[in-house]
Amino acid sequence: MQVALESNAVFLGIEYLAILCWGLSGGLAAIQKGYDIFSIMLCGWLTALGGGLFRDVMLGDLPPVGITDKGFVLTTLFSGAIAVVAHPEIRQLKWTMIVVDALGLGLFAVNGTAKALAFGTSGMTAIFLGMFTALAGGLIRDIFLGDVPMIIRDRHLYAIPSFVGCILTVLAWRGSEHGLFDMRSEMVLDILIVVVVVLIRVLSVAFNVTMPGAVPRTHVYLP
Amino acid sequence: MQVALESNAVFLGIEYLAILCWGLSGGLAAIQKGYDIFSIMLCGWLTALGGGLFRDVMLGDLPPVGITDKGFVLTTLFSGAIAVVAHPEIRQLKWTMIVVDALGLGLFAVNGTAKALAFGTSGMTAIFLGMFTALAGGLIRDIFLGDVPMIIRDRHLYAIPSFVGCILTVLAWRGSEHGLFDMRSEMVLDILIVVVVVLIRVLSVAFNVTMPGAVPRTHVYLP
Amino acid sequence: MQVALESNAVFLGIEYLAILCWGLSGGLAAIQKGYDIFSIMLCGWLTALGGGLFRDVMLGDLPPVGITDKGFVLTTLFSGAIAVVAHPEIRQLKWTMIVVDALGLGLFAVNGTAKALAFGTSGMTAIFLGMFTALAGGLIRDIFLGDVPMIIRDRHLYAIPSFVGCILTVLAWRGSEHGLFDMRSEMVLDILIVVVVVLIRVLSVAFNVTMPGAVPRTHVYLP
Repeated sequence: MQVALESNAVFLGIEYLAILCWGLSGGLAAIQKGYDIFSIMLCGWLTALGGGLFRDVMLGDLPPVGITDKGFVLTTLFSGAIAVVAHPEIRQLKWTMIVVDALGLGLFAVNGTAKALAFGTSGMTAIFLGMFTALAGGLIRDIFLGDVPMIIRDRHLYAIPSFVGCILTVLAWRGSEHGLFDMRSEMVLDILIVVVVVLIRVLSVAFNVTMPGAVPRTHVYLP
Repeated sequence: MQVALESNAVFLGIEYLAILCWGLSGGLAAIQKGYDIFSIMLCGWLTALGGGLFRDVMLGDLPPVGITDKGFVLTTLFSGAIAVVAHPEIRQLKWTMIVVDALGLGLFAVNGTAKALAFGTSGMTAIFLGMFTALAGGLIRDIFLGDVPMIIRDRHLYAIPSFVGCILTVLAWRGSEHGLFDMRSEMVLDILIVVVVVLIRVLSVAFNVTMPGAVPRTHVYLP
Repeated sequence: MQVALESNAVFLGIEYLAILCWGLSGGLAAIQKGYDIFSIMLCGWLTALGGGLFRDVMLGDLPPVGITDKGFVLTTLFSGAIAVVAHPEIRQLKWTMIVVDALGLGLFAVNGTAKALAFGTSGMTAIFLGMFTALAGGLIRDIFLGDVPMIIRDRHLYAIPSFVGCILTVLAWRGSEHGLFDMRSEMVLDILIVVVVVLIRVLSVAFNVTMPGAVPRTHVYLP
């Protein structure tokens, strides 16, 4: 599956698109706080590649891809530069950004999980690492900008779709290990998983579906 | 000693208890801020296993135990689920929580130091790694929730007892290397170290013992 | 170059001076917030050695030098102790601190980049790791103390001089690989790079040179 993800031009294209979009949203977050160009670039890079950085540190695949892959790094710098100029337009395209951000969420979840499985981790560890890849970049950016991370603050579904995507990726991988699918079917399955993640995320925002908090109780039952 | 810690049912039981309790206290912190179930689970997991995660990254023992050990992860999820329902009761049992939290502090300090020594680090490095194990989880949780970490903000003794526990663990390890104790004595010593840590911590809260800050001075002596 | 940096008494002296100074400035930050002695020591250590810790984790050189080198660790504890007593004087010596801090910035940038290159990374990865070494310590300290990191908040040049220093170090290294300089010239070049970094930083503060932010625009061009 890792092979499928890496060798395919479609997937590589979507990955660059995801990095570009997350770079834009990271840069925009820094612009809205009024920070300078260096901080804008830093936040774009962190948002797009920070999750993979975290995953690679946990896997021991060092130095991490977020500081070694020239194509990825240049893409984040390029998206930071776009954000510096085109921030009023990006802000306006709210729904486009939500959809492309969700695309990145799905793709990084599938990609992170598949990379972990290719390194021989258990399914649970792969799910953790897939979620780190999808969630850690935005989380670290929010902490840098002095906010409580969006995935903690916002009750819309964001971690849940990435979780679903990671579980489905593990299942698809296990199925292919047992010879249930050939390589072509795996790729189709991967794309379907990304679509599922995007759908859950976008529908959650569109219909304002939120996660419940703790059970609200006031009476204390203690001896 | 690592062997002693791992192979012994009593220690394993206390370790699960510590993880359960730290998972509860982490979940409670997220509940008090009004966050959703995912954030509650995340904070429970981070508080209980984030310190060990940090230690394993520093040691290069990857992927870290906090994302590979199914028993530990399930325990944190279980404690998060308890917190979601039983938060009013947990809040009420303040002193029980302080004692069990101190138990976790002592046990993670001993456990982290012993693991580092078993990896062949120097005594100083092992003390650092023991303190990381004991302190990093709560620290990262506080940053995620937008607070200045409790170990920085609170002047009650919290880091100091873990520091004492780490030093004593190194001394006990060195003693056993030189043939001063057999394996049974080591285990007794380990338990005694945990008791010492718990006592320092609990007495500090009970009698309001605090650490001093910088020397208060107003006059500046400069040429 | 790494060899040049390590084997030379002058460089080693400057490195200890940089660690001492960053330890002082980290301790001072904790004192100004009114925290206790443990937090002062922690912040001093983090500021001085946190950047190198981060670099070593990324390089996979574990356990990192920040928890294994006794001389470095004792120096940070010593500088924390000085800050506890002499904080009114240190605060007064504002310009001395800015210059010595800039000295640390330049030296850690050169040192971090050279270490990465000695580990066989590409130039881009080495620049990232040099900047991590120079910037990550202060960044983590600011997050611990609940501030938006200074390098994000402050528009004076701070990341830029470290970036310039890292690029120049890579160029000097490449030149020496191609036999353009001998070892003595490398050392002189290294010192010149540090001087350039210090000059950019200090002049930026003195003449209030700041980085621009995003292009200010109000009209949105969208179909």
